[in-house]
Amino acid sequence: MKKDKVNIGFIGLGSRGYGYLGLLLSMPDVEVLGVCDLYEDRAEAGRKLVQERKGNNPVCTLDYKELLEIEEIDAIITPSSWTAHGEICINSMLAGKYVGTEVGGATSIQQCWDIVKTSELTGMPCMMLENCCYGREEMTILNMVKQGLFGELVHAEGGYRHDLRDEVALGREKRHYRQLNYLNRNGEVYPTHEIGPIAKYLNLGRGNRMLSLTSTSSKSVGINDWIKKNKGKDYDLYEKKFALGDVVTTVIKCAHGETIVLFHDTSLPRPYSRGNLLQGTNGIWSEDKAAVSIEGITPVKNTWDHHAWQPLEELYPEYEHPLWKQYREAGVKAGHGGMDYLVIRAFITAVKNGTDTPINVYDTAAWMAITTLSEDSIAMGSMPVAIPDFTNGRWIDPKPAIKGRYCLDEVSGESMDEEW
Amino acid sequence: MKKDKVNIGFIGLGSRGYGYLGLLLSMPDVEVLGVCDLYEDRAEAGRKLVQERKGNNPVCTLDYKELLEIEEIDAIITPSSWTAHGEICINSMLAGKYVGTEVGGATSIQQCWDIVKTSELTGMPCMMLENCCYGREEMTILNMVKQGLFGELVHAEGGYRHDLRDEVALGREKRHYRQLNYLNRNGEVYPTHEIGPIAKYLNLGRGNRMLSLTSTSSKSVGINDWIKKNKGKDYDLYEKKFALGDVVTTVIKCAHGETIVLFHDTSLPRPYSRGNLLQGTNGIWSEDKAAVSIEGITPVKNTWDHHAWQPLEELYPEYEHPLWKQYREAGVKAGHGGMDYLVIRAFITAVKNGTDTPINVYDTAAWMAITTLSEDSIAMGSMPVAIPDFTNGRWIDPKPAIKGRYCLDEVSGESMDEEW
Repeated sequence: MKKDKVNIGFIGLGSRGYGYLGLLLSMPDVEVLGVCDLYEDRAEAGRKLVQERKGNNPVCTLDYKELLEIEEIDAIITPSSWTAHGEICINSMLAGKYVGTEVGGATSIQQCWDIVKTSELTGMPCMMLENCCYGREEMTILNMVKQGLFGELVHAEGGYRHDLRDEVALGREKRHYRQLNYLNRNGEVYPTHEIGPIAKYLNLGRGNRMLSLTSTSSKSVGINDWIKKNKGKDYDLYEKKFALGDVVTTVIKCAHGETIVLFHDTSLPRPYSRGNLLQGTNGIWSEDKAAVSIEGITPVKNTWDHHAWQPLEELYPEYEHPLWKQYREAGVKAGHGGMDYLVIRAFITAVKNGTDTPINVYDTAAWMAITTLSEDSIAMGSMPVAIPDFTNGRWIDPKPAIKGRYCLDEVSGESMDEEW
Repeated sequence: MKKDKVNIGFIGLGSRGYGYLGLLLSMPDVEVLGVCDLYEDRAEAGRKLVQERKGNNPVCTLDYKELLEIEEIDAIITPSSWTAHGEICINSMLAGKYVGTEVGGATSIQQCWDIVKTSELTGMPCMMLENCCYGREEMTILNMVKQGLFGELVHAEGGYRHDLRDEVALGREKRHYRQLNYLNRNGEVYPTHEIGPIAKYLNLGRGNRMLSLTSTSSKSVGINDWIKKNKGKDYDLYEKKFALGDVVTTVIKCAHGETIVLFHDTSLPRPYSRGNLLQGTNGIWSEDKAAVSIEGITPVKNTWDHHAWQPLEELYPEYEHPLWKQYREAGVKAGHGGMDYLVIRAFITAVKNGTDTPINVYDTAAWMAITTLSEDSIAMGSMPVAIPDFTNGRWIDPKPAIKGRYCLDEVSGESMDEEW
């Protein structure tokens, strides 16, 4: 049953996709049999890259459905635009392929159900390739959570806090889908870099789940301000109103009483941060402090508030996640500090072994759903909205058997495979 | 009309009140003619302190209304319990006294209206003594905001993030009112350390106002966990359920589209932070980073995200608020890094000059209202609730004339008085 090699069809060759393709092509157990983009030059650049690196001449097309007809392709990987992911996932599973989809939110709850139901119908897994689940910091924190260092978890925060004004304002020139999204939609359009790791800390889908959310949007002035400062009155978007609020705050309540706060914050000048914060009855982690404070571990300073921050760096020797230790010993490979490599390996390993993916279709659907539900809440003046249970009740089991395959309780495979 | 001395009646002599009284007694233009507490030993300790420091023997009572009958008293200062502030404010104004109330939230919207209407009826000001409005960092940021360094403001965050588990768990032994509040109420019970300074940045009540909020509470497990770790099974609160969620998140929307996020977070272990964050079209301030990033000022590092943090310390020489410069030159006096001194001086100065207080009754009511509205929202599953306009429309004027007195657009008097 196990495969020695995985044959990939690759859909979406913007700058993120092109980089991802290069990473895939560095893996000896991966072949790329087809590449696709809506832009001919991008598709051709992908084809050329495959030929240079692997020697084979992949099918090169502007219509992704042509790739789905190639029987030898085991899996589709799609760093396409946010609004294209859903359809590509569904059609790929219907064609009998594993799917790994780049991050992004859903445009309707029906779309999330369709993804789930298609996976259940076809037996094909659908994994959101959420690289931040594989970050060194995030995995180390996960390891500490599993060992009980934070006590009972109570509250988590995260954000995508990243100045993308130029990418959005110049979206057409850069052929980037963010611009059309920002011009037309108002919601938490990019929640998964935070909600992914947080879902793993809180065991969402494995004994816990998200129940409801509210979402609130600030005014939208940041992109226009950037255009005024950098492009001048002749720029055709000079007076154009962007629908997306500069800062969108989403507050989620979970079945066991935990709260999660997400910030989408990409239209104002600021240094990058994913703003992670995690609090339990025994301690706290703050990404912005690059530190934790854990009772019984962090030295108590003799101050009036009895707590101090301790650099996370000091805890790596003891608490770094085993996968990351193994990975660093093998030499960090590539992409966003290694997490791109790890998330793709987790996907490829699942395809080779014929198992479910560690981020499963229920995770994928639930995380994507935040976007469309946030749009709904904002449209209704921050009304609370219910978050569907895409497992139809199976989440109450901490190790739910789903179609005969167990979900792993870690974000990775059990261990690194021999290729590494 | 101007007074050389101010005669104070002082209500509430817990540890905060006792410290505050000592500070007042250090001021040569202040006399304390009466002291009051519900506990006789506390009232007596206050009386003794006045006699030691000033030589006079103040009226000492367990019934604050006795102080209101003393005609020579110009102003009441009340660091009493949260649930007592409202009534004391109202009765003091009815007796013709200025009122300075310690921070704390309201228990009903009607109470806020009663405070406002009593002030309008009697002409007596009611100032929340929100010391954080006078913090060196907060005032410097205010000064930078007024000079336009942040551009158009869009989003603010703040919190009261302070491990108070022992104070709450031992509340009865310590005779601290927090315990009964935490046992019974679930909401943003202590919003003003953040909302006060933020209100000043955003000109709330002076051309802007808060429109609505949602509030979401996490589970309540932190205090019980502390009791289990520190007191054992015989402690009578061992199995007692606390109503207050460990982390309460409140999201406020303002008339001009700004968002404000508040965190109440006092039942879990963590280092202290007020978690201030302020974002505009031109820059950001983060308290946790102790830094800003301002376009055109902060050096651009040649990194992929084009922004860096710059320690706020570097900007003090140019942007420190004039009041603070003056104050430091005179020698920082006392209490929470000087801000207690400054907030009391602002109040005393208003009483001496017979002017309105810089934090006026509309500010006081609006900030207190967050608490009861947050309780409402949580009780209804995070439903959005409207925030009343306690000015009845006068907020649309950036310098609203209120009963013939102009509100100052700074948090302080125009300058320090000669006593300093």
